Amino acid sequence: MFELHSQLAKDCFVIGDFELCRLLLMNDSNFSWFILLPKRQNVSEIFELNETDQKQLLLESSFFSKKLVEHFKADKLNIAALGNVVPQLHVHHVVRYKNDLTFPSPILGKFPAKPYSNEEFDSLKQKLKNTLTQNFNFNF
Amino acid sequence: MFELHSQLAKDCFVIGDFELCRLLLMNDSNFSWFILLPKRQNVSEIFELNETDQKQLLLESSFFSKKLVEHFKADKLNIAALGNVVPQLHVHHVVRYKNDLTFPSPILGKFPAKPYSNEEFDSLKQKLKNTLTQNFNFNF
Repeated sequence: MFELHSQLAKDCFVIGDFELCRLLLMNDSNFSWFILLPKRQNVSEIFELNETDQKQLLLESSFFSKKLVEHFKADKLNIAALGNVVPQLHVHHVVRYKNDLTFPSPILGKFPAKPYSNEEFDSLKQKLKNTLTQNFNFNF
Repeated sequence: MFELHSQLAKDCFVIGDFELCRLLLMNDSNFSWFILLPKRQNVSEIFELNETDQKQLLLESSFFSKKLVEHFKADKLNIAALGNVVPQLHVHHVVRYKNDLTFPSPILGKFPAKPYSNEEFDSLKQKLKNTLTQNFNFNF
């Protein structure tokens, strides 16, 4: 059975589900920082997913990426599967702006996370509802 | 016509070609740090590739990733499409070891690159020849 790694459960909000992946939001309002996490157990690397799941991950990643560029007006996306700390396969999708806190450097480890206020999170939830109008089930 | 971005040409060795991607090696012997670069012009994001190319990138990335884990005994792979500095789409594939210089932190920007000696590069070339025995054309 699929279970979310405790560290991700602590650091993230669950936004909802694509067919394969759970969509998480890192609780750090410095960035629009999302995570796609395939709902499979005991997988750490993309190549360890079976071929069908690999293709579905790609499909969902590209679908979501395109939406992020359109609706969040990203200058660039940073997509990364690292997993040095949390071995459960998860793929970061971060919206980058040329004027954000660390551009053009990567975001990891530069600034402490700044948790969302209730108002900021409500506003982002609404934005996501307008962004993901198909192929997605919201958790709220 | 496909042309390699000048910054990558400066920082990397060209190892050879998969069907879609050119394989580069970052000239930094601190890490086994490779780049898969789809030979397409004017593409910055994975979702901007057509569907056939996206699937081929995934295929080559997973093929190469599996080989890296097997032949380089990686503890973890770090796979990332960033492109904040070089907008030409390129996907980092970094072999990570639990005792490497920056583990579990990401590698970017932590240490200055340490160029390969001729002997080190010759040895790595031989290792890659033993690793990539199919679906790949070497540049040497």
